[in-house]
Amino acid sequence: MEPVLDVVGVGNAIVDVIASVDDPFIAAHRLAKGAMTLVSAERSAELYEAMPAGIAVSGGSAANTVAGVASFGGRAGFIGKVRDDQLGEVFVHDIRATGVAFDVPPAPEGPPTARCLIQVTPDAERTMNTFLGIAALLGPADVDTTLVTSARITYCEGYLWDVQVAKDAIRLAMEAAGEAGRTVALALSDSFCVERHRAEWLDLIEDRVDVVFANEAEICALHSTDDPAAARDRTAAMARTVVVTRGARGSIVVDPTTLEEVPAAPVDHVVDATGAGDLYAAGFLWGLSQGAPLWNCAQLGSLAAAEVVSHVGARPVVSLAGHAAAAPPA
Amino acid sequence: MEPVLDVVGVGNAIVDVIASVDDPFIAAHRLAKGAMTLVSAERSAELYEAMPAGIAVSGGSAANTVAGVASFGGRAGFIGKVRDDQLGEVFVHDIRATGVAFDVPPAPEGPPTARCLIQVTPDAERTMNTFLGIAALLGPADVDTTLVTSARITYCEGYLWDVQVAKDAIRLAMEAAGEAGRTVALALSDSFCVERHRAEWLDLIEDRVDVVFANEAEICALHSTDDPAAARDRTAAMARTVVVTRGARGSIVVDPTTLEEVPAAPVDHVVDATGAGDLYAAGFLWGLSQGAPLWNCAQLGSLAAAEVVSHVGARPVVSLAGHAAAAPPA
Repeated sequence: MEPVLDVVGVGNAIVDVIASVDDPFIAAHRLAKGAMTLVSAERSAELYEAMPAGIAVSGGSAANTVAGVASFGGRAGFIGKVRDDQLGEVFVHDIRATGVAFDVPPAPEGPPTARCLIQVTPDAERTMNTFLGIAALLGPADVDTTLVTSARITYCEGYLWDVQVAKDAIRLAMEAAGEAGRTVALALSDSFCVERHRAEWLDLIEDRVDVVFANEAEICALHSTDDPAAARDRTAAMARTVVVTRGARGSIVVDPTTLEEVPAAPVDHVVDATGAGDLYAAGFLWGLSQGAPLWNCAQLGSLAAAEVVSHVGARPVVSLAGHAAAAPPA
Repeated sequence: MEPVLDVVGVGNAIVDVIASVDDPFIAAHRLAKGAMTLVSAERSAELYEAMPAGIAVSGGSAANTVAGVASFGGRAGFIGKVRDDQLGEVFVHDIRATGVAFDVPPAPEGPPTARCLIQVTPDAERTMNTFLGIAALLGPADVDTTLVTSARITYCEGYLWDVQVAKDAIRLAMEAAGEAGRTVALALSDSFCVERHRAEWLDLIEDRVDVVFANEAEICALHSTDDPAAARDRTAAMARTVVVTRGARGSIVVDPTTLEEVPAAPVDHVVDATGAGDLYAAGFLWGLSQGAPLWNCAQLGSLAAAEVVSHVGARPVVSLAGHAAAAPPA
């Protein structure tokens, strides 16, 4: 069957609450700057109490990515879990408003919709503290394998790999996609996340994954090494394609026959790094789904990442299709 | 007793959901551009469904004003009503995070926390559709008269005047403030709101109000005239002080001995007009509470309004105390 979607994402359905803080705030509350830390409902409430006033805006790593694919003009879907509460309503509204197909019904009971408290420091770095709530309870029953196999690419976020039912959901989605001959992509998400799941992920990548997205810290963590090039090549021997993002230094993409080093797109003023990796993946996957060569996929990723770091929030505020047309890859 | 607060606000406790739309969206959904329209829960849900993805941020007219007073370094309190739901939690967090005293307990039952759907068009005009929910049920029992009489100024928003219990709450607050010798201020809020309540408000202003805030449309509506100067002078004969804001043309303030015409503060790029009037009132009331002359109060109002229209959302994103110090009145 010819695919009807370009990309389907599987991930945590999260509403972000974003506030500006200074570095002493990060220190005083013992936050892991630049990382994503999972927190309990109690810790989330405590930290929220201490935070300045903020804005609430839909987030979630793979959700941001598919919203980005839709913004490029791609056809995208999402699989994730919310409660039937107000933040759940915001999440569902926003992802559908971007044109992404999202049909997992909000759960009538269980923990509340996930909330990620994001502190943005003056250096534009984001520090994330996530109360996963019901997002972590995404299970195989929530995975519509017909939706999955209707997409050229299935993209799963590593963040989801902390609870057994969600692991089962990812495995089911990856198996369905793989058996239908589709492309399976995995984002390693966070170096602490990689540390927690190294052995399982090495097996998963070997068995099921075609495209791996990571930054240098994550790819190094995957192989317990300090050498990003070695880690990249070892990963490339397991998956078909490996994409390593390097912030302002751009990205490196390798597959069995190619190594492309692509610069970052220029940004006048970096305001908030939240979503940079997610939107890089959006541009890359959109290009990949259209059959673009790897260097072009990486350029589209850089372009989308540059847009999202230029404002607060992890989803594009302009049409990426228009943005790409106005600033075509060099 | 010496006042311990500068300003206490009485108003609707609302979370704003703000999205950018084009003018055809306003037309297609038959919205009253530039106005505030009250909508039912059903209409709010329909309109939300049709809106693009947005951001959620605490709002409410008088709440924005007292948040602004606190941002100037003033001591402020707020009286308004939320449910014990997620948007209520956001409202309470944000107003307390600005340093405003807020102690009305979230209601354990009743309609949900108020939501205002705000469409911002490319001309930076905001069009508001408010589902008042539990905010409209603020009643006399929610008014802490000790808090009210502890403030130099009690500031009530006209928007609250649509339901009998809320009218009773405003009357109670105004009476308590007046009997304690404090200053009572009223914002006329919206010309449609004035049309609905003209007769009652003329009596209220005559009997209870010291300072009236209005734009030209509102002050004209109050006296069913097209002549802003005549409407202003007729209002000034009823209250002690009348403040008429005129957008980019600045403001005019009159009291029995003075007429001051004060220009607007310059703004590089107007992004979102939401909160302009609320923050003008914040600067004005902060000055008034400090015994500043009227022209200086108006300049502080202009400065605060200029800050809030330069970004999305109706509350300041920088310290207005610092902002005022960096850009002192001419």
